[in-house]
Amino acid sequence: MISILLIGKGNLAHHLKKQFDEIDEIKCIQISSRKLEKLPEAKLAIIAVSDDAISEVSSKITTPLVVHTSGGQHLEVLQNNTNKGVFYPLQSFSKNRKVDFKNIPICIEASNEEDYNLLEKVGKLVSSKVNRITSKQRKTIHVAAVFANNFSNHMFGIAKEICDGDDIPFDILHPLIQETVEKIKEMDPKKAQTGPAIRKDQETIKKHLFLLPEKYQEIYKSITESIQNGD
Amino acid sequence: MISILLIGKGNLAHHLKKQFDEIDEIKCIQISSRKLEKLPEAKLAIIAVSDDAISEVSSKITTPLVVHTSGGQHLEVLQNNTNKGVFYPLQSFSKNRKVDFKNIPICIEASNEEDYNLLEKVGKLVSSKVNRITSKQRKTIHVAAVFANNFSNHMFGIAKEICDGDDIPFDILHPLIQETVEKIKEMDPKKAQTGPAIRKDQETIKKHLFLLPEKYQEIYKSITESIQNGD
Repeated sequence: MISILLIGKGNLAHHLKKQFDEIDEIKCIQISSRKLEKLPEAKLAIIAVSDDAISEVSSKITTPLVVHTSGGQHLEVLQNNTNKGVFYPLQSFSKNRKVDFKNIPICIEASNEEDYNLLEKVGKLVSSKVNRITSKQRKTIHVAAVFANNFSNHMFGIAKEICDGDDIPFDILHPLIQETVEKIKEMDPKKAQTGPAIRKDQETIKKHLFLLPEKYQEIYKSITESIQNGD
Repeated sequence: MISILLIGKGNLAHHLKKQFDEIDEIKCIQISSRKLEKLPEAKLAIIAVSDDAISEVSSKITTPLVVHTSGGQHLEVLQNNTNKGVFYPLQSFSKNRKVDFKNIPICIEASNEEDYNLLEKVGKLVSSKVNRITSKQRKTIHVAAVFANNFSNHMFGIAKEICDGDDIPFDILHPLIQETVEKIKEMDPKKAQTGPAIRKDQETIKKHLFLLPEKYQEIYKSITESIQNGD
């Protein structure tokens, strides 16, 4: 039995708790980060709080191994006097959306083999994808995820607003978006690139700029340039 | 029986032909745009050639109704002397990828009701999503699709290159990308926006810019700005 102390009440903590509760080999107690007195004993403490709070929260924990769950934070941000590690599920969590942990890559970092083995064991109990990732790689993933998730989402948001402006239901674009994503699972996105930018079709680009609301012209230009530069 | 003359040998023509051949109510003859002498008789001619070629190809066709399949071209680009229309399947087609036409929105434009009804009939035989779209709306969709498909694909391409640079398998980001797309099918992408830009987390943004290869710094900045401007 692996005893886990889970600290935090946010989206990730919520989903982790639900998942842990379904696993016989894990006994998980969840507490709020505001109630860190008289902590129950556990093998592993998982801190699932906002980045800013990790340092302070960790300083109050005496569990033998303490990990945070953040993609953007150093291992060393942890201030506990016991062992440190990272247990980073690479996914974006919302309270009201179902989560299939089996498909979520868990990125693990530890400072010794014993700790790594424990984290890997926990990781494999919740997911089929466990990856040993260095601090440097984790930072890289975090930046890459900004492009893959935050920035692509912004593209979808702009597309929706453009549709809204002409009474076009946004869902008309859903199959195209889904196909874009299916394709990159099979081939390098750079090789799948289509559209006026990569074709250097300046006439269409000019037409688009003319059609676009002013506030989107700059971003259209700068992404088009980036595609044409072969970035 | 609806007799269709399909002109073109590219990806879209290839997939359309395959689809038409599965439908009993349609008899489709496909020809190359280089062989436009002695055309077989048909009710409807569908021109599925590159945008530049539509005008010339259409000038040689005498079928009662002639449509093109382009998102970015006017109805008036057609130079036939018979009726004109548009039959635009809103999807990106690649030769080696399977296509499920049932889910592809077909955008239809015609200059009279009779033509519209014929195009709608053909549309409904191949897809469950047929939309009457004006020329203006079609242009708007075409611009929106650049953001939703071409630009988001570029974001995925950059994400992959960032991962490659640090020996991280790109598929570690696939579940995150899939979740991004699932979310926007249910909610406004602008309301789903997460990440350092929307949080105005300048410290993380600074870290990311420091980490990023120089060629991606400009685009990171300009998309971050666009998100922060509430574009």
